Amino acid sequence: MLAFECDYLEGAHEKILNRLIETNMEKLPGYGADPYCASAREKILDACQCPEGEVFFLVGGTQTNATVIDGLLSSYEGVVSAETGHVNCHESGAIEASGHKVITLPHHEGKLDAGELEGLLKTFWGDETYEHMVFPGMVYISHPTEYGTLYTKDELKGLHQVCKAYGIPLYMDGARLGYGLAAHGTDVTLPVIAEYCDAFYIGGTKVGALCGEAVVFPKKERVPKHFFTTIKQHGALLAKRRLLGIQFDTLFTDGLYMEVSRHAIRMAEVLKQGLKEKGYGFHIDSPTNQQFVVLENKKLEELRKEVSFSIWEKKDADHTVVRFATSWATKEEDIRKLLALM
Amino acid sequence: MLAFECDYLEGAHEKILNRLIETNMEKLPGYGADPYCASAREKILDACQCPEGEVFFLVGGTQTNATVIDGLLSSYEGVVSAETGHVNCHESGAIEASGHKVITLPHHEGKLDAGELEGLLKTFWGDETYEHMVFPGMVYISHPTEYGTLYTKDELKGLHQVCKAYGIPLYMDGARLGYGLAAHGTDVTLPVIAEYCDAFYIGGTKVGALCGEAVVFPKKERVPKHFFTTIKQHGALLAKRRLLGIQFDTLFTDGLYMEVSRHAIRMAEVLKQGLKEKGYGFHIDSPTNQQFVVLENKKLEELRKEVSFSIWEKKDADHTVVRFATSWATKEEDIRKLLALM
Amino acid sequence: MLAFECDYLEGAHEKILNRLIETNMEKLPGYGADPYCASAREKILDACQCPEGEVFFLVGGTQTNATVIDGLLSSYEGVVSAETGHVNCHESGAIEASGHKVITLPHHEGKLDAGELEGLLKTFWGDETYEHMVFPGMVYISHPTEYGTLYTKDELKGLHQVCKAYGIPLYMDGARLGYGLAAHGTDVTLPVIAEYCDAFYIGGTKVGALCGEAVVFPKKERVPKHFFTTIKQHGALLAKRRLLGIQFDTLFTDGLYMEVSRHAIRMAEVLKQGLKEKGYGFHIDSPTNQQFVVLENKKLEELRKEVSFSIWEKKDADHTVVRFATSWATKEEDIRKLLALM
Amino acid sequence: MLAFECDYLEGAHEKILNRLIETNMEKLPGYGADPYCASAREKILDACQCPEGEVFFLVGGTQTNATVIDGLLSSYEGVVSAETGHVNCHESGAIEASGHKVITLPHHEGKLDAGELEGLLKTFWGDETYEHMVFPGMVYISHPTEYGTLYTKDELKGLHQVCKAYGIPLYMDGARLGYGLAAHGTDVTLPVIAEYCDAFYIGGTKVGALCGEAVVFPKKERVPKHFFTTIKQHGALLAKRRLLGIQFDTLFTDGLYMEVSRHAIRMAEVLKQGLKEKGYGFHIDSPTNQQFVVLENKKLEELRKEVSFSIWEKKDADHTVVRFATSWATKEEDIRKLLALM
Repeated sequence: MLAFECDYLEGAHEKILNRLIETNMEKLPGYGADPYCASAREKILDACQCPEGEVFFLVGGTQTNATVIDGLLSSYEGVVSAETGHVNCHESGAIEASGHKVITLPHHEGKLDAGELEGLLKTFWGDETYEHMVFPGMVYISHPTEYGTLYTKDELKGLHQVCKAYGIPLYMDGARLGYGLAAHGTDVTLPVIAEYCDAFYIGGTKVGALCGEAVVFPKKERVPKHFFTTIKQHGALLAKRRLLGIQFDTLFTDGLYMEVSRHAIRMAEVLKQGLKEKGYGFHIDSPTNQQFVVLENKKLEELRKEVSFSIWEKKDADHTVVRFATSWATKEEDIRKLLALM
Repeated sequence: MLAFECDYLEGAHEKILNRLIETNMEKLPGYGADPYCASAREKILDACQCPEGEVFFLVGGTQTNATVIDGLLSSYEGVVSAETGHVNCHESGAIEASGHKVITLPHHEGKLDAGELEGLLKTFWGDETYEHMVFPGMVYISHPTEYGTLYTKDELKGLHQVCKAYGIPLYMDGARLGYGLAAHGTDVTLPVIAEYCDAFYIGGTKVGALCGEAVVFPKKERVPKHFFTTIKQHGALLAKRRLLGIQFDTLFTDGLYMEVSRHAIRMAEVLKQGLKEKGYGFHIDSPTNQQFVVLENKKLEELRKEVSFSIWEKKDADHTVVRFATSWATKEEDIRKLLALM
Repeated sequence: MLAFECDYLEGAHEKILNRLIETNMEKLPGYGADPYCASAREKILDACQCPEGEVFFLVGGTQTNATVIDGLLSSYEGVVSAETGHVNCHESGAIEASGHKVITLPHHEGKLDAGELEGLLKTFWGDETYEHMVFPGMVYISHPTEYGTLYTKDELKGLHQVCKAYGIPLYMDGARLGYGLAAHGTDVTLPVIAEYCDAFYIGGTKVGALCGEAVVFPKKERVPKHFFTTIKQHGALLAKRRLLGIQFDTLFTDGLYMEVSRHAIRMAEVLKQGLKEKGYGFHIDSPTNQQFVVLENKKLEELRKEVSFSIWEKKDADHTVVRFATSWATKEEDIRKLLALM
Repeated sequence: MLAFECDYLEGAHEKILNRLIETNMEKLPGYGADPYCASAREKILDACQCPEGEVFFLVGGTQTNATVIDGLLSSYEGVVSAETGHVNCHESGAIEASGHKVITLPHHEGKLDAGELEGLLKTFWGDETYEHMVFPGMVYISHPTEYGTLYTKDELKGLHQVCKAYGIPLYMDGARLGYGLAAHGTDVTLPVIAEYCDAFYIGGTKVGALCGEAVVFPKKERVPKHFFTTIKQHGALLAKRRLLGIQFDTLFTDGLYMEVSRHAIRMAEVLKQGLKEKGYGFHIDSPTNQQFVVLENKKLEELRKEVSFSIWEKKDADHTVVRFATSWATKEEDIRKLLALM
């Protein structure tokens, strides 16, 4: 059985496991005060070219989004997201559970539009009747988006400028950030993100780690007050944070994070090219590790006997959009087998 | 430098790391549907002699307490705890953040008294004025407690009977459960706990795992409805839950969990005996891996140059209570060195 | 200056004030145990033809929605609402503040469609991937809607049947319920509502009272457990609940509630007829006390010097939709003056 | 039947009802923008000698506490209260429902001690381990307390200085504030409170109004940002806020608030004196409108056939503490009748 249903099918990159073994019996202080967290923090800030920033290591994506958003918002504020945003759709109400509304705007292949954002924000300044509504206190975007698409540098700058004009932070969910950074043709780099976002996270779980997400605040003064306590309150403080520190220290040593990300993109390109040659259509032109392919329902039924993949949405009576995901661990040989079956 | 400040100084038992490596490249479904979670669940239910139960794997202690308590309570209910309970003191308000009051009762070396519990509960049934107060919707205990003490089987039965009489669940925080089960003279076993508690968790983080706590509901029908969604809402759902399944599967294979727990207790006994022989007094007579020793302040200052330990509380003007913790990873040689310094 | 901007411009119907004066020095028990609350409850259940039901008196609309919704939902559930629903737009995040997501569906002149509701609900039963989403735990509708429109009896029945099939309650926000019941051509009566809704509230604030909303559960067994405590927790428990009991007792004596409601509808009809004769267009054909009229912007600027009204939305570059509201207190003479100005 | 069980037995002072009638048909803007709210605000700030302050009118006590506390705290903070504080005991978890822990200190006849408060606060500054606990973000006191006792000016100053030193606000619950201000021998006045508290509320419900509490922020810059929205989010925003404005405007015209308060104190003094003469003992020496009297159980049973009062607590096997409350509406003739029965 071939498996392409997601990018978290395997454990971790072997370098990470080796490092866990090497350091295993060192006695280290808990809760993030160990030298591996410190080293990982330094390497990440270096890669982002924001030495004055701060980094926190959390365990998973939903937890990270809920913790950062709760830290950045006042109780009367909500977070603006594309209607397709992960925080709006697939986090079981984690944002609302900490008391905040997700305020939605239309999506454009998963992305927010700066003009529409400004249209929303400007109604909230100056008019009393808006005091009966939830204030937009920050903006959430994901990069890559849920559709595998990417913002351009200019689009990010546009969102940044609107947020800055209205004095609210821009936060990027980077669950699959590596696959976005490694995509062909993108002009968005870690330093670009650090310039335009007030907070973002570099996803580990889907990019070679067992678990873990690194939250970056490019400017230390933008870290929410007593954020450590907020992390603990959200149940997101690992006693053995070394587990996260060692993983990110490894991923940010000798460019491993980008190396594994580029591998996933190469695999996605092989798949994409192969499918195109066989005449398959794509629901969206994704430059990242998620490929959304249109299948005839009959073909789908046949294929699923030998391959696992995700059902994305119904296209029409006879066709369905399915998702194939590659990752740091995908073998080219498996892609070839998949193409042979198509 | 000798280190005795807590029981989460090292990584994980080597058998766990080896198992992670062996299984690393297997492609497994996410979110708990993998065979290692299934196998670990079966072994745990077997050890607890409650084959009809259910098990969920979460990441850390505060997260587990917040998720289980939120799952078990209605919005108008609170959780009863000893005033010294971890949920009341050291979880940064995680319980209140999900809307629930921690209702406190006095502690007796960290333990709740069944009679006092009944005194509280009986006021809430039948009298309308209590509708202005938070209903006690469940009871939280820890075993071992924050003071390293243990309930007896009869004490547990007493709490169980009161809870049953008032129709509310009894929940046990077992962050250090192994060290409680392995203590000399205890008559509390996993099957006893499964008989008297409606929910409890078997701690992994402090007992040989990198991270992870196994929540057990001895009766499947007592699992909160849609608990999977509640776990996700609390940010407690690991995408690669295999990380938890493999660890617990290893810990519950060939009695490893009890073996490493007994080691910690042996180390604590060596320490205790040695200190007694040297004339040191104990704040509390703890049968588990945490030892609370009374030190002269002068001795304390001297010792901390070569040993790390926890300051527990001030005893009097000249004395302080300190805590030394042993664990699955403590070396007898280090205990000997510590004793030599005392 | 003529005032038509809302239906809460004046105090209360004089019969209510008189009753407050007559009963003022009676010593009555607090928190709802007084005979006026009891009498009002009985009269309301009688009017709704559901003698086995239960009634609670709360103070205002947002408070009532937040309290009832929090009472009816489990922590992992959200409330389904039209995207234009008051709970989604104009309650400052009160629903989310108690931890619940507002799950939106498209609106049809403010109304939910039973077919679209079923489409949403059916995806949540049987498929595990939906466990990552917020469960729809109840349905919220308003009658009249925010657009002044009304459900037909058949439409209500349709929603009722879908809710019943999926086992979730249907809740109606009746902030302006009187004006809906008194509208011409409606086949929806209090007994119809009591038959099809699991909970609803009869608005007082906008229909002749100083404040107050009466929450009706047609079947006592559907009242959320310990709902009194939930009311208190939401800060919605008035010490002198007599203030609410006396008002509703008066409104439901000798048909006063319907009498004042019919007056508002008569006034709205005079206005509507007059505007039609003058050639004005309507944004929506509203049969209730809110009339949405299209004005040229020039006319709007001129008119607002002498009349207060609400700006609803921009129609096009030159036209704006404005709202005129009548109420129990509107004088026909003022309608005539308004028409003369148009 | 004589009734002394609480201070909210009757409706409102007749001057308030008259004013409601006089203003009833005036068309006024909603949500607090009416001239009566403005006038009441001005009179209150004048009485408090803090013309630069701000006033908000809310409906009831629990609602006011929950709204103000939620407005003043960040999500990681809790409120410090005496263990007997109303927010800790009798508000059904309203504070926790908005996510905040009530951090308790011992009480001294219902009062907090400034030294004990400082002892708590100083542990939170400078030591990292406290980041695992809930930060004390503000202090809650009540005046009079739940025991009818009063702070002295010096005691208030002491609390104020501690709060100021640690940079957190001091908030006073004044549900019965009038009865505290009118007590014999107190040196605490409204200007004193405005000097030492960052926020407080002047209770209306128990001091002559139908409902309503006036929240005062002596310094406008200490009002929580967008507090109007927070009020709405808590369901505490009355559409017809005139109902609150008119009541407070009347209470603060020609000293009515103090006049009715002094009456209640006079009645309490007559009762106290009479009971002392008859040899009754008091549980606490209360200078305010609540008197806590020790009754033999036999006497209690006899008395309750003709008088309603509150059972406070068991004194010993044969005696019970009961509470008699006077109010603005108490008749001296009823006090005489009560004394005759004792």
